[in-house]
Amino acid sequence: MSRLPASVHVREVGPRDGFQNEPDIIATPDKVRLVELLARTGVRRMEVTSFVRADVIPQLADAADVLETADIPDEVSVSVLVPNERGLDGALGHRERIDEISVFLSASETHNRKNVNRSVEESIAGLERVLPRAREAGLRTEAVVATSFGCPYEGHVAPARVFEIARRLVAAGAQEVGFGDTTGMANPLQVREFFTAATAEVPGVELTAHFHNTRGQGLANVLAALEGGCASFESSFGELGGCPVPAGATGNIATEDLVSMLHEMGIETGIDLGRLLEASREAQRILGRPLGSHTLVAGPVDWNAAA
Amino acid sequence: MSRLPASVHVREVGPRDGFQNEPDIIATPDKVRLVELLARTGVRRMEVTSFVRADVIPQLADAADVLETADIPDEVSVSVLVPNERGLDGALGHRERIDEISVFLSASETHNRKNVNRSVEESIAGLERVLPRAREAGLRTEAVVATSFGCPYEGHVAPARVFEIARRLVAAGAQEVGFGDTTGMANPLQVREFFTAATAEVPGVELTAHFHNTRGQGLANVLAALEGGCASFESSFGELGGCPVPAGATGNIATEDLVSMLHEMGIETGIDLGRLLEASREAQRILGRPLGSHTLVAGPVDWNAAA
Repeated sequence: MSRLPASVHVREVGPRDGFQNEPDIIATPDKVRLVELLARTGVRRMEVTSFVRADVIPQLADAADVLETADIPDEVSVSVLVPNERGLDGALGHRERIDEISVFLSASETHNRKNVNRSVEESIAGLERVLPRAREAGLRTEAVVATSFGCPYEGHVAPARVFEIARRLVAAGAQEVGFGDTTGMANPLQVREFFTAATAEVPGVELTAHFHNTRGQGLANVLAALEGGCASFESSFGELGGCPVPAGATGNIATEDLVSMLHEMGIETGIDLGRLLEASREAQRILGRPLGSHTLVAGPVDWNAAA
Repeated sequence: MSRLPASVHVREVGPRDGFQNEPDIIATPDKVRLVELLARTGVRRMEVTSFVRADVIPQLADAADVLETADIPDEVSVSVLVPNERGLDGALGHRERIDEISVFLSASETHNRKNVNRSVEESIAGLERVLPRAREAGLRTEAVVATSFGCPYEGHVAPARVFEIARRLVAAGAQEVGFGDTTGMANPLQVREFFTAATAEVPGVELTAHFHNTRGQGLANVLAALEGGCASFESSFGELGGCPVPAGATGNIATEDLVSMLHEMGIETGIDLGRLLEASREAQRILGRPLGSHTLVAGPVDWNAAA
């Protein structure tokens, strides 16, 4: 573990990935309050919402309202998820509120088709239109490759194929590539090898890990990714959100569990864990159910406890 | 990770550590059924019960019944937890049903006093009577040092102190030393350093890690322990049991999450994950509540899924 970084980037994706997956739509003022609480944790990157069709994802139909209303300090790089050119048009309508966009596709044909009803090649072609336009507008760009570590429909996904897709997206203008373990199939050995290879195979851009805690191994995969040279992560406060496959399963790793582990290891994130837990407690109150984050229940490690 | 072992030992502690922590006492026939289901998973070590005072831990008052009734294959090494000489007397009354005993103390004075109302020195003195008697009776012996990675009352616990205690217990007859992260304070960097040192500082005996998933980092600590040379783990099916500090927190790592991760990494345990999940589903049915294990919800990773 001698190569572990002194600090890492954390992108909080709960306001998009988490809110999108809530069966009951969260009221816009509640979203704004949670975004503002998160924006004051010291987190430097936040995926705030997504410009998607309201009939497909009604949970994020208020994207413009949230973006225009939330008071977010300049230090926070605001990103929105953009599925296609129409989504980019929506985002560009709020250009002054946005710093980054994230685009996505799946590395496996079946998952991509089920998710966005296109072939991988069709998705790449679409992103080859979206990414340059975003760059021209001065936006930073992340491309997320879902099912990078395995597909629930196809099984193994060859890293060579994932890297090839990543390189094409970089060539189209992506400045950061995220690799998603969309249904939590990755194991630490695989993850470490993947990132060790990725840093050579996809050079010149930031590489980000997006793990799910589907089988409880999310933070073990973070550790393995760190060992493989990854220094950028995406996570969701309260362990909100994720993927509905398998049914009932946990999704994203919890930001507070990630931050607790990293800080205990002496790796900086810029995030105040106490403030982050306040945001998760507020989400728990708004949603009216216990959330899956462990640190939210247990509290931070207290090394100064008195007997 | 080049030094990872090809196989590890897993001791299933749910029937003791899990059942002991259930507020509603589990009926003896239900315990027997669960023990028998576990005994047919291929697990090679199981802590089946504990000989403790029934007025202190009424949940395990049926220790003798469970031991005498459960049909456990010879391949499974049956252990019982023994707090003191009286507990050993109880265990020796069922000598032919038992292969191992586990004894315990805490590395921190405050935790030991709150847990067993003795100083660490008094506990060691007691174990110096228990361990030789167990060895004379032909039993294998494990000594577990709780709060090895931190104490909720005292904070940091010096590894040198933990190793000193471990060496004294080995001198008294312990053939295996378990190190407990009793309230989930350990981080992977600390764990890797700890086990790297422990293999030198406590030579000649098996070293076992007993992690809790208090802040979601349990399997990350398993990975770090593997990297530090540890090849023996304790865990609890269904994520049952644990420690009531902090209040409401998760305890032990789930055996199925541990086994899923290890098998995905190509590390053998001898355990059939499908059968293990059957045991956890049965525990869930008996207890009438969802258990904390992730793999129990998500199911094993399926690399052969057809689209």
